[in-house]
Amino acid sequence: MAIRLDHQEPDFEERFAALLATKREVSIDVGDAVAKIIADVRARGDAALIELSKQYDGIDLEHDGLAVTEAEIDAAMDLVDARTLDALRLAAERIEAHHSRQLPRDDFYEDALGVKLGSRWTAIEAVGLYVPGGKASYPSSVLMNAVPARVAGVERLVMTVPARAGALNPVVLAAARIAGVTEIYRIGGAQAVAALAFGTETIKPVDKIVGPGNAYVAAAKRQVFGHVGIDMIAGPSEVLVVADGGNSADWLAADLLAQAEHDEAAQSILITDDRELADAVERAVLAQLTTLSGRERAEASWRDHGAVITVGDLTAALPLINRIAAEHLELAVERPHDLLPHIRNAGAVFMGRHTPEVIGDYVGGSNHVLPTARSARFSSGLSVLDYVKRTSVLELGPDQLGALGPAAIALAEAEGLDAHARSVSIRMNMPGS
Amino acid sequence: MAIRLDHQEPDFEERFAALLATKREVSIDVGDAVAKIIADVRARGDAALIELSKQYDGIDLEHDGLAVTEAEIDAAMDLVDARTLDALRLAAERIEAHHSRQLPRDDFYEDALGVKLGSRWTAIEAVGLYVPGGKASYPSSVLMNAVPARVAGVERLVMTVPARAGALNPVVLAAARIAGVTEIYRIGGAQAVAALAFGTETIKPVDKIVGPGNAYVAAAKRQVFGHVGIDMIAGPSEVLVVADGGNSADWLAADLLAQAEHDEAAQSILITDDRELADAVERAVLAQLTTLSGRERAEASWRDHGAVITVGDLTAALPLINRIAAEHLELAVERPHDLLPHIRNAGAVFMGRHTPEVIGDYVGGSNHVLPTARSARFSSGLSVLDYVKRTSVLELGPDQLGALGPAAIALAEAEGLDAHARSVSIRMNMPGS
Repeated sequence: MAIRLDHQEPDFEERFAALLATKREVSIDVGDAVAKIIADVRARGDAALIELSKQYDGIDLEHDGLAVTEAEIDAAMDLVDARTLDALRLAAERIEAHHSRQLPRDDFYEDALGVKLGSRWTAIEAVGLYVPGGKASYPSSVLMNAVPARVAGVERLVMTVPARAGALNPVVLAAARIAGVTEIYRIGGAQAVAALAFGTETIKPVDKIVGPGNAYVAAAKRQVFGHVGIDMIAGPSEVLVVADGGNSADWLAADLLAQAEHDEAAQSILITDDRELADAVERAVLAQLTTLSGRERAEASWRDHGAVITVGDLTAALPLINRIAAEHLELAVERPHDLLPHIRNAGAVFMGRHTPEVIGDYVGGSNHVLPTARSARFSSGLSVLDYVKRTSVLELGPDQLGALGPAAIALAEAEGLDAHARSVSIRMNMPGS
Repeated sequence: MAIRLDHQEPDFEERFAALLATKREVSIDVGDAVAKIIADVRARGDAALIELSKQYDGIDLEHDGLAVTEAEIDAAMDLVDARTLDALRLAAERIEAHHSRQLPRDDFYEDALGVKLGSRWTAIEAVGLYVPGGKASYPSSVLMNAVPARVAGVERLVMTVPARAGALNPVVLAAARIAGVTEIYRIGGAQAVAALAFGTETIKPVDKIVGPGNAYVAAAKRQVFGHVGIDMIAGPSEVLVVADGGNSADWLAADLLAQAEHDEAAQSILITDDRELADAVERAVLAQLTTLSGRERAEASWRDHGAVITVGDLTAALPLINRIAAEHLELAVERPHDLLPHIRNAGAVFMGRHTPEVIGDYVGGSNHVLPTARSARFSSGLSVLDYVKRTSVLELGPDQLGALGPAAIALAEAEGLDAHARSVSIRMNMPGS
């Protein structure tokens, strides 16, 4: 059973703070093992990939080849039923339409002094997309990571996915084709991250690596960071459902369980101003659990990390919402627009009773890669901005240098940087140059 | 002497690749020492800060107080000469004007199905700004980090700066006041980062920490990352000057040395299509070195990391420029706008002969916190975007759920996520809910 907190109880602050402070992820230290794998791939390239893939994935890459061929992707497309393909296409179209609005615009202008300033955006040239094997190999995540990269104008979009015992998920390959992935290699783990970062004979290196993975993949991403860019390291998923009394307990229970079924470490929290609804949702969660195929995971998540919080009224919920800073926030209330302006920290907000978070996972159009573990306080979900970078541009003529030069020299002198001062003064025929 | 490369020599590619691959930073492993300091500050708060500051900075915080008072800042303002204060104010105004254009706009719209989508930007609530002590304590960096935060709407802007032997740089305090810093504490090192991330009795925790620091500070930022946000970890500074034959060798030499004087690990590179100019710049660098107060540092940087590259024509320089991906790129050529469209990777570009990079360090208006060590391939300079985060907003009514629900269910089923499918189907009165 999830814990139950009441905002009006005297021990509330203490228990709420403890809930926020709970670490849900078991961190295992695989840094040394990962460092060895990375060094091996850097030193021996393809040969290391072949050996490590035999060892970890039970696959003979010398026979199957590192690259997944177009013919293999064709075959995968044939294996996927039309209903799933249509859904993938609808999702990709909606993601593309939404993310196209995120493309930043260059900004060039001249100020009152005649100084020309500019910001110029360019796409990252090559991006690697890590896709996990097994259960966590989600086709929807391929779309969510790849489509914004294509919208940004990334030229090489290189996917890696481990082929455990030789098998690849055809829906993942179909999603990759629909999303516009340009190369696919059947490798995984830290060795895939190393190959993307440093390149091998077969795989050209990329500039940034995105996508979820297990502890080895996360450690590898941390270790290659700096040499290439990486995206956020995502933690277990979480949902905060804020509900008034006018809700169906069954609907809310289904939403809480949709999050819980991801992972034992996932977290589902309900905040409501209606104690009876709180009771009814707890009962409905238990009832729905009995028919879930992923029952064990969901049960463990709800038992260990679930929480039901009752408040006197929804205004009292607002500071709690902002402290929780949830990855997903459902505002299942009569007037969600009254609350929205007061929400400061949340990865994504789902408005009203007919917007279950799951729509955002697949076909809403917005991205499902969102900040976890309270990091919505300082970071954002994945977007086109993660695939572009900005170059600033500055242009002065002699008049502008004359106007700004003396102040630059004054600051250079205050900082004790002679050559800085000289680089300006020498252009102004000033003493000391 | 800097190394000399010629693009038309047969060994060019090998030598150029070696130049790019050279690590300029000595990485010292202080992870364990830093982990201890962080744990100590978390456990003992102010008491740990007082003890560590006595040990490392030789200052008695019980006597001086952790917080720098308004009266102290008033006194600092009185100590700074009017010329420097005016220059700081001009710089702050120009930084504010430029960065105000970077504020992202919310975007709310309804698509053809009637689905409402939105992106809502909010400021990070509290940001910590680390300022180093000693020589690297640059007032200009206070402005560059703090002004964009204020433009973004950050409410608490908390600066830490170590007071070695009790002393604070009055120009740094003046810059903090002009930039709108809201709190200042006289602490430094890993203990300052820990205090900002986790809070103490006196210092409330922040959500993100920015600003440069030594190896201990960088390690501490890495270790608290996740609990709070951090900015990039900056490496040694670098400039790439691209010059045609129409330049003054003295001007270019001054620019190369302005970078070299920062740090023995700084890097200055000249690319030119004029061999005589290349020779003249090398001579001018040596001549100007003799009169620099920071001669030893600049000499070591130019000797160990400087490079002069000659090319047949400037078109041949373009791929080299993009591979170097310099923090600062000067296009000291007759027609810089002909080259700009082909520049893909650079932190900032300085156009023409009258825009020395130093203007961008101080008073150009653009930010001087820029990606180093080839990371301009995948990252951008500091901007207002580093102080805000985006929340996505999604809103469906029953009709929109009816239109999109089936595709969401199809994808949930393809991913084997029962509760995801149910969370949609239960709202559609579908079988299985």
